[in-house]
Formats: sequence, structure tokens, C-alpha cells
Amino acid sequence: MKITTQYKDGNYAIDVSRGILEDKLTDYTSSYNQVFYLADKNVYRLHKNGKLSFIEDPILMEQGEASKYFDAFSNLLESLLEKGIQRNCLIVIIGGGAAGDAGGFAAASILRGVDYIHVPTTLLAHDSSIGGKTAINSRHGKNLIGAFHRPKGVVYDLDFLDSLPDSEMLSGFGEVIKHAMLRDQETVDALMMATKDGIDVNTVEPFIIKGIETKMDYVIKDENESGVRKHLNLGHTLGHAIEYRYKMPHGIAVTLGIYAALHISNALNQEQTFDLKRYYGYFKGLGYPVEELKTIDAEDMISLMTKDKKNQNTDRIGYIVMDSIGEARFTEIDQKLLIKLIKNLKESL
Amino acid sequence: MKITTQYKDGNYAIDVSRGILEDKLTDYTSSYNQVFYLADKNVYRLHKNGKLSFIEDPILMEQGEASKYFDAFSNLLESLLEKGIQRNCLIVIIGGGAAGDAGGFAAASILRGVDYIHVPTTLLAHDSSIGGKTAINSRHGKNLIGAFHRPKGVVYDLDFLDSLPDSEMLSGFGEVIKHAMLRDQETVDALMMATKDGIDVNTVEPFIIKGIETKMDYVIKDENESGVRKHLNLGHTLGHAIEYRYKMPHGIAVTLGIYAALHISNALNQEQTFDLKRYYGYFKGLGYPVEELKTIDAEDMISLMTKDKKNQNTDRIGYIVMDSIGEARFTEIDQKLLIKLIKNLKESL
Ligand SMILES: NC(=O)c1ccc[n+]([C@@H]2O[C@H](COP(=O)([O-])OP(=O)(O)OC[C@H]3O[C@@H](n4cnc5c(N)ncnc54)[C@H](O)[C@@H]3O)[C@@H](O)[C@H]2O)c1
Ligand SMILES: NC(=O)c1ccc[n+]([C@@H]2O[C@H](COP(=O)([O-])OP(=O)(O)OC[C@H]3O[C@@H](n4cnc5c(N)ncnc54)[C@H](O)[C@@H]3O)[C@@H](O)[C@H]2O)c1
Repeated sequence: MKITTQYKDGNYAIDVSRGILEDKLTDYTSSYNQVFYLADKNVYRLHKNGKLSFIEDPILMEQGEASKYFDAFSNLLESLLEKGIQRNCLIVIIGGGAAGDAGGFAAASILRGVDYIHVPTTLLAHDSSIGGKTAINSRHGKNLIGAFHRPKGVVYDLDFLDSLPDSEMLSGFGEVIKHAMLRDQETVDALMMATKDGIDVNTVEPFIIKGIETKMDYVIKDENESGVRKHLNLGHTLGHAIEYRYKMPHGIAVTLGIYAALHISNALNQEQTFDLKRYYGYFKGLGYPVEELKTIDAEDMISLMTKDKKNQNTDRIGYIVMDSIGEARFTEIDQKLLIKLIKNLKESL
Repeated sequence: MKITTQYKDGNYAIDVSRGILEDKLTDYTSSYNQVFYLADKNVYRLHKNGKLSFIEDPILMEQGEASKYFDAFSNLLESLLEKGIQRNCLIVIIGGGAAGDAGGFAAASILRGVDYIHVPTTLLAHDSSIGGKTAINSRHGKNLIGAFHRPKGVVYDLDFLDSLPDSEMLSGFGEVIKHAMLRDQETVDALMMATKDGIDVNTVEPFIIKGIETKMDYVIKDENESGVRKHLNLGHTLGHAIEYRYKMPHGIAVTLGIYAALHISNALNQEQTFDLKRYYGYFKGLGYPVEELKTIDAEDMISLMTKDKKNQNTDRIGYIVMDSIGEARFTEIDQKLLIKLIKNLKESL
């Protein structure tokens, strides 16, 4: 399956399928003088005798998030320059969202910009395949340093997902759920049906594609109608606080945040639009620890949320609520009310 | 005097004059929530009780080129983030081309891009006020990591030049000479007349402005007719080799390179288009050590030139020659011929 981005210019293809890696890469690499491969250490270790055996002498990146700190990033730049990279070369980045972020920022900065291809190896990275954001972390927070720099192509070979640990799969699936919720009821129902017995790469494939399309729609819409991109934060306001406090994988915390958002939307709209029992059962069945929401401390969560720059100097907190599946809305909730709503949610569990 | 850039979009003003700093800065800063000042340590030390006394709590940058190394750069980013910089803030960079390059790249990267104003404090920085290039250095060479990120404005208060050491003045003036040479005979004659007794800020002011305009013309022309920007390398091919080998300030080495280019142009065109004696006397009179060209080792210079990526894997060397003042031309000179031409130049001195 091939998706093409719909920007005004600078478009690229996202190929999503099993077994496409070598063929698709050849299509890209053949038009460059020289190609430099960057690979997440972990991914390379697992696949160097298999899918990645055709790659000679890659530059290994620290695994996952570790690649996004300054020292790892400067080492990466120096390695590329030591090997003599020039402007007409191509960088191929093999790894999850972290490798894509750090490698993409390296591609943006080296010689003020060289072309790159991303080969995502995680489920979550379907999310980063659109939007052109690259970044590394500061001591003062994640993703604070970076550039907008779109890849020349994304080669999403789903075979890689077979080696992904369950917790990473579950985490990435949280963003698949989010994208389905932002799309329409039909997609959510189909997703729930297809994964009622668990998350399997083959059954999830069409929803990865829909997820990419949904994200694309939002990014494009946002270029005209500033602000809708915020909806992509569904589940993230509380999710980030949970992720931070309980050291939970990002997408798992976001899924708990989505459940909370559905509960809070029902309460604010004073309507039982969302069948909370159904979602609770579905999330729980897949392995998301939704019951942990019972143990969160509402005041603590709020105080973490107000650490976010956007919510400083105000007693209201920006929040994405849902009027129905497919209809997200940004609102600001008074802190005291939000504490009450979270306590309410806890009691309901 | 105010120059406005002529890009298709994203234009900005370059104000050049004495005594404009506070007034002009206020015009810019008043439309931002918060302003962060970055200043070259040296410049701040010299002017903190004078022209810069209105600035509270600037972030001090390592002086000159030292600010362009990775550690200094990451410290700069962390300082800005620690102070809570947000996307709608303004950065004001006070310093020479080095501060502008490092600070500009910080502005490009922080939160994927915040606005900035450059306040150049050297003569050479008239050159960097146009082109939008920002950069830091790698262990493997200068300016290899960076971004294109134009300032929102340049406030070039010439008062700063009064504290500039003579050698920096002479170095920066090399680029003023280059820009005049690329422009027309009239400008060169007027420049030589105005500075026959030495370089004085007030008499040089109109030539700084013409220099900025000339650079602007080249940058704009290059957007259509790719390649003419190369002419800005007049004097730089040999200049870089001299700078590297003899640790001479950039613009001084470039001026020696310009003299060499005039000599070589005469030889290649087999015409005495350029009155070499006149230029030799002028350069020498201002303090450029043109006689040092006698001591350079032609083979050594060539081997340094071929280290440049552009000249690898070929026995020809890219070189900017002049058919007349205002008419530069890129050509490739066979290495053996270039050695002969340089030896010839040495003998002529
Ligand atoms: N740029 C964007 O638009 C965007 C969007 C979403 C997330 N992100 C970023 O993505 C990052 C998270 O990315 P991620 O969730 O893909 O994780 P990741 O890249 O951090 O990888 C997680 C772990 O899985 C390992 N791994 C990766 N692929 C594997 C495979 N096929 N088999 C076995 N192990 C594998 C990695 O080595 C690492 O240990 C965050 O830094 C986040 O900020 C960016
Ligand atoms: N971006 C571009 O287009 C571009 C163009 C040309 C040069 N550059 C870069 O500019 C840098 C050179 O810049 P530069 O020549 O302006 O020098 P600089 O910024 O390196 O400063 C040179 C020295 O002068 C000191 N100084 C600066 N202003 C002073 C003042 N008013 N009084 C006293 N001392 C002062 C500095 O502290 C430093 O020690 C190089 O790194 C070069 O790569 C960039």
C-alpha cells in the first residue's frame, strides 16, 4: 500500500507493507552518489543477519530515546562528517520514532540539509511518518530542539514489527486507537472487531494506513485552519502526566488518557455518548492497565499539567474532548472542575 | 541607511548607521512577549557600561569562533531553554559573524525555529547579514552543521566598529574590497580613493552598504541562475589555503587571494587588464602583507585546495577569475598550470 502526502510541495511516498525493504530502498538509493545508513543499535543487532544483511557498515545509533540526547546527536553528526558525507548524498534511517527524530534532525543540519529516507521499525512510528517534525531532547524537556525537515520517502516494512516487544507494540497501538477515534465510528468499530483477540500485525495493517491518512488530514487541515492539529493531543494532556509520574510507555499512558477523555466528555456534555464499559473492556482486554487510573492523584496530575508551558499563568487547562467519535474539540477546563472530573472518573472504576 | 532584502518572501530590513541600536531594537522587541539577548562575551565586556547598558542579564556567548563549537552551542541552547524561551519570543544576537552564525542556528533549532535579530559588531559581519546561512563547526571542518534561517532584521550600529581591533578591521575590510571588485570599476576607484590613507569607519560606511547590496544581488541572482553565487568565492580558494597554513585572519588571507586572482586572471587572459602595481601598492598601504605571497609553497597550496570536497577526484581546481572589475567568472584550472601560475606570481613580487 502506498500513501502519498498532500502538501503543496515537497511530497513523498509512504509505502506500507511486508517484505518491501530492499526493493523500495533501491528505488531511492539508485539516484544518489552515496548512501549512509543509520540504524538503531537494537534493531541492527536483531536484524543484521536477516532483513538488514545487505547493509554494509551502518552508523549505529544509541537505542531508542538515548539517541535523542545531545552527546549521542553530536557523535552522530561527527560520524557522518568523518565518513565524508556531501550534500548530494542520501541518509537512510532505520529505527523507531526516536531514531527518526534524531536522524532526521541530523539530516536537516548536516551541510544545512541533506535528503533522507525513514524506515520505521515500530508501530508508533506510523505517527512520525507524517508531519516533518524532527527533534532531539534538552535537559529541560523532550523535543525542544529540532527542525521541520521532511523525508524523501518512508519505507515502512511491517516485517520489523515481528521483533518488537509486546509493550512497545501496545504502546504504538495507543496512537492507532487515537487516530481511529479521530476518524469515524466505522473505523473504531472495525478496529475493535479486528483486534478483539489481540494485536496482530497483519490485521492491524489497514488501520496503520488509516492512521497515517488521518494524521495527514489533520496536518494539511492545520495549514489552513490553524489549531485543529491540537486534536492530535487527544489523550495526551493526562497521558503525559501519567507517563511522567508512573514511567509508563508513552502510548500506554495515552490510551489511559483517551479513556479518561471519553469519561470526561460524557460528563461535560451530560450525555452518555460513549459506552464507557465497552471501551474499558476493550482496552483492558488488550492489556492496557486502565484500572490504574483508580490510583492516580488528581491534584498531582493537575500540577504536572500546569508545568506545560501552554497552561501556565491560568487556572484553566487546555483539553481535547470528544462530542462523538470523529468529532474532537479543544476546550479549556477550570482546574477545580478538572480535579472533580478526575475524582469522579476514579470513583467510577 | 536602510536596505531591504529582495527575496520572494521573508524579507527583512538591514539598518546601517551610527547610534541606531536602542531605537531600532525597540521597534522590533515591542511586538514580542519576551526578548532574550545573546552577546559575544568580549563585546559585552567592552560595551556593558556604554551602548549595551540597557540590556539586562544577557546570555554571554564564548567570544568569536569559540561560540561555534558543539559544547558552547549546546550550552547556549540549554541556557535559552532554562530561561523558559517559547516560540513567540525574540532572540537578539549581539556580536560578529561567529555570534551571528551560532546564535542564528540556535534560533533556527530551538522549538524548531524562533525569530531573531542580528546586531553585527564587526566589519566582516556585513557579509553575513545577507544569505540566511547559520552554522556551527564540526571537528571535520568549519560551518558543516547549520540551517538556513533568516533574521527578522539586522541592526548594524557602526559605533561598535570603534572598539574593533585593527586586525579584525583589516580582515573585515577584505570582504568589502571583494564586494567592490564584484560590483564595478567606479566603486573600486571610489573605495581606493576614500581609503588611501587608511580604513576609517565613517568613510567606509557607504561601501559597507554597497557591499551588502552586491551580496544581495548575487544571492537573489543565484536563486534563478544557479552557480553565480560561486563568484562570492573570489580570493577564497587560495585565501582559505593561506588562512589555514599561515593562521592568518580570514579576510586578510582573502585579500592576498584577491591579489593572486588578479595576477592569475591577467596571465590566463594574456592581457594586462589589471594594473597589478596599483593594487599591490593599495593593499600594502592598508597593511595587508601581500609580500608574504612570495613565501607560499605552490604545491602545498594546491594540496590544501584539493582537500576541498569540490576539488576531489579531479586534476582541475575550481577558481574564480576576473575578466574585468565587475566581471567574475568561474573556471577550472589544471593543477599543473595553477602551480605554474602561482610560481609566476611569486617571482613577480
Ligand atoms: N516526529 C514526530 O512526529 C513524532 C511523532 C511521535 C513520536 N515521536 C517520537 O518517537 C519516539 C518514540 O518512538 P518509538 O515509540 O517508535 O520508539 P523508539 O524509537 O524509542 O524505540 C523503542 C525501543 O524499541 C526498540 N526497537 C525499535 N524497533 C524495534 C524492532 N523492530 N524490534 C525490536 N526492538 C525495536 C528500540 O531500540 C528502543 O529500545 C519519541 O522520542 C517521540 O518523541 C515523534
Ligand atoms: N553566515 C554567513 O553568511 C557568514 C559570512 C561570512 C562569515 N561568516 C562567519 O563569521 C565568522 C567570522 O566573523 P567575524 O569576522 O565577524 O568575527 P568574530 O565574530 O569571530 O569576532 C572576532 C573577534 O572580534 C571580537 N569582537 C567582535 N566585535 C567586536 C567589537 N565591536 N569590538 C571588539 N571586539 C569585537 C570577538 O569577540 C572575537 O574575538 C566566521 O565564523 C565565518 O564563518 C558567516
